[in-house]
Amino acid sequence: MKQFLSVKDVPNLPILVNEALSQKRNPFANKQLGKNKTLGLLFFNASLRTRLSTQKAAQNLGMEVMVMNVSQDSWGLEMQDGAIMDGDKAEHVKEGAAVIGQYCDIIGVRSFASLTDKEKDIQEEVISQFVKYAGVPIISLESALRHPLQSLTDVITIEEYKTKQKPKVVLTWAPHPKALPQAVPNSFAEWMNASQVDFVITHPEGYELDKEFVGNAKVTYNQKQAFEGADFIYAKNWSSYTSYGQILSKDPAWTVNAEKMKLTDNAKFMHCLPVRRNVVVMDEVLDSPNSIVIPQAGNRVWAAQAVLKQLLSSI
Amino acid sequence: MKQFLSVKDVPNLPILVNEALSQKRNPFANKQLGKNKTLGLLFFNASLRTRLSTQKAAQNLGMEVMVMNVSQDSWGLEMQDGAIMDGDKAEHVKEGAAVIGQYCDIIGVRSFASLTDKEKDIQEEVISQFVKYAGVPIISLESALRHPLQSLTDVITIEEYKTKQKPKVVLTWAPHPKALPQAVPNSFAEWMNASQVDFVITHPEGYELDKEFVGNAKVTYNQKQAFEGADFIYAKNWSSYTSYGQILSKDPAWTVNAEKMKLTDNAKFMHCLPVRRNVVVMDEVLDSPNSIVIPQAGNRVWAAQAVLKQLLSSI
Amino acid sequence: MKQFLSVKDVPNLPILVNEALSQKRNPFANKQLGKNKTLGLLFFNASLRTRLSTQKAAQNLGMEVMVMNVSQDSWGLEMQDGAIMDGDKAEHVKEGAAVIGQYCDIIGVRSFASLTDKEKDIQEEVISQFVKYAGVPIISLESALRHPLQSLTDVITIEEYKTKQKPKVVLTWAPHPKALPQAVPNSFAEWMNASQVDFVITHPEGYELDKEFVGNAKVTYNQKQAFEGADFIYAKNWSSYTSYGQILSKDPAWTVNAEKMKLTDNAKFMHCLPVRRNVVVMDEVLDSPNSIVIPQAGNRVWAAQAVLKQLLSSI
Repeated sequence: MKQFLSVKDVPNLPILVNEALSQKRNPFANKQLGKNKTLGLLFFNASLRTRLSTQKAAQNLGMEVMVMNVSQDSWGLEMQDGAIMDGDKAEHVKEGAAVIGQYCDIIGVRSFASLTDKEKDIQEEVISQFVKYAGVPIISLESALRHPLQSLTDVITIEEYKTKQKPKVVLTWAPHPKALPQAVPNSFAEWMNASQVDFVITHPEGYELDKEFVGNAKVTYNQKQAFEGADFIYAKNWSSYTSYGQILSKDPAWTVNAEKMKLTDNAKFMHCLPVRRNVVVMDEVLDSPNSIVIPQAGNRVWAAQAVLKQLLSSI
Repeated sequence: MKQFLSVKDVPNLPILVNEALSQKRNPFANKQLGKNKTLGLLFFNASLRTRLSTQKAAQNLGMEVMVMNVSQDSWGLEMQDGAIMDGDKAEHVKEGAAVIGQYCDIIGVRSFASLTDKEKDIQEEVISQFVKYAGVPIISLESALRHPLQSLTDVITIEEYKTKQKPKVVLTWAPHPKALPQAVPNSFAEWMNASQVDFVITHPEGYELDKEFVGNAKVTYNQKQAFEGADFIYAKNWSSYTSYGQILSKDPAWTVNAEKMKLTDNAKFMHCLPVRRNVVVMDEVLDSPNSIVIPQAGNRVWAAQAVLKQLLSSI
Repeated sequence: MKQFLSVKDVPNLPILVNEALSQKRNPFANKQLGKNKTLGLLFFNASLRTRLSTQKAAQNLGMEVMVMNVSQDSWGLEMQDGAIMDGDKAEHVKEGAAVIGQYCDIIGVRSFASLTDKEKDIQEEVISQFVKYAGVPIISLESALRHPLQSLTDVITIEEYKTKQKPKVVLTWAPHPKALPQAVPNSFAEWMNASQVDFVITHPEGYELDKEFVGNAKVTYNQKQAFEGADFIYAKNWSSYTSYGQILSKDPAWTVNAEKMKLTDNAKFMHCLPVRRNVVVMDEVLDSPNSIVIPQAGNRVWAAQAVLKQLLSSI
């Protein structure tokens, strides 16, 4: 593996999943692998799980970690080629990325979608520039369009908890007070489509995801129908892709509750977190034994560790 | 020891003090103990001594440390059970604490008193929620009501510098331009009451501390009387507990100066720092040979290291 | 070496340069030297290269590193002796520096020039106070007047790329939208004057640097004449020293471009970064094979590592 931006970078998904589960059983078995190697983690946006789990994963592999909040610790990066830099941005990503590449063996980058400039978001401007200029492998810590460490985590978690060969996995939209990116649902869909599951997406009209990610998934506006017989319910809010970045609905009828969970085949409840309690999902579901959001978050370490191990092996 | 929130969590104070002094003599003797263990340090408020000394202590024990400024690096945490989270707070502490507990073996939390909501402060809402939900041992890095790592440091420092079996220790209120929490004086009182000292508290009327912390200490409004024959003067400002969070006095007559120090039995001057020079205490005292504020601050490492060692031994 | 604030602290520059190049060839050869030693990095100002490269250098030597953004993570430090601290500043540098010295074996401090108070800037107030009170060796991570880790890097880089015994090195002023300190040009001049080079400074009238730093350098207002036959072009903006902190010119005629580079003897282009593209220097120069700004930035690690190694050897 030369980079980790999407499922397309994974040569063999089942091998990567097994690697993650193997790291989980034996977290410190490869502590020599990362010796004298440095992971840089660059945050253009806030982070809790990604920040801590990736740091932990790197330390388990014996790596040094340097964390930087780009705007707080440093200064704005100009992304545009040919820019006349007489404004706010003090450094061009051409230099910024290349310089960080001089100090780090692998770089993780988090940069959310703007939700205002669809064109730039689709081009994944920030992470693409890092890939182009850093000169070392790049790991996405969530880009404008994808959150692959989360999605690998989700695949691992489903693998651990599934009780059927081919479980029914439902990605359901849920309401939220703020406009959120499509990165998590996009990425989840992409990885589910690469897995052995019966995959269904349900959301209100107007919340269609980009076809590139939806692939062959079944899509329905009928949430209750979607829930029927499901083995995993994966809730997530996202803003509209077609009416880009807009909130078209805050309809509480889409909130996941105990009644809807009864329609499932005793489904496990998943969410990438952070989750708005009693808006996205009711306490009664999150606090039920069927909620696996905490072990799911715990698996972020093993996803990151499997990815770092594969990248370390290739440098 | 299963957690470190107050002196009540210490099974045997003299043993803990000896442990700290033993770590001080031989800082790296237990470097294997923390191997492959991670300490998370969460700051809801600013920190210098606590941040660096606890990090240093953990590193001396071979632990990895992950530091997070909660509001800067991440997002606001909802503390209220049952909240409908459609406002500013993106994550509930139920998830936040449990997730961090997935990545860390021990978690340190700093969260100051609001000084506006006495009820919540008394409940020690933030640290209590972490204790409830994190699933791993919690260390207080200063909570609404207590600062136990500071108080253990103070006990160690008095142990090192005392010249009598039962020294006279005076906690004196001093003026300050801003309203400060009662955590340090509360905690100092609680630990002094658990130690072999003759303990006196002096402050202006209206600055009475909660009886729970005062215990059997002698309390007087007469600062000069209190200073007479003292072996240790511990200065600290706090805002009123009865008129909660209010500044009732900025009277410079309470500033600690050389003249007052002459009333003591050649007392050592202590302060938890940061200290407002020439407001809380005059330069002439802080810069005198009797001031032990710097070695006192240095002892923060050994207090933290003794606590971490005992917690590591129990997990 | 007891501290690293300027070239004057270097007992033997050629030995230090060789040390840096030796560390570069064998980065992990001295991993035992820094064992159980802690480097504190204090940033009063933003940093990317200095932050990451110094951290990396310390880790290569086996040190632990604790990084602190002073104003974000902690609180303002009072610098004035005798201050009555009833204002914004919660801690005096006398305590702040001494306390950090209790937790760290070496302390790096970054504190830029104010550009408003020439007197204070010339006194290098912040770093001087740390030297006075910390009780451990201080490394400048850029002070009001100097940036010695950058200058050592520049000396190393010229040593690596020079093709003549005594190359011609030109420091050229270039336009910039904001008022910048003189630290980099001051320091570069100081180190060039200590090296075996033919050193020329060129800038518009009014941009004369302090004579202390200029030394015996040739100074000319004629940029093109300066470029003739040059082996290294080092571009940098600075604000006026005589009209202190003022921007006297943004004249684009001073921007470094391909045409001017043709006047040189196939000169390498250097800059300390971050650089404003198409303001300080045109893309055509930065993106040409003669630009060595990225390997120059990479050398920051080896400069820091050589300095840390010498300081570690002396404590």
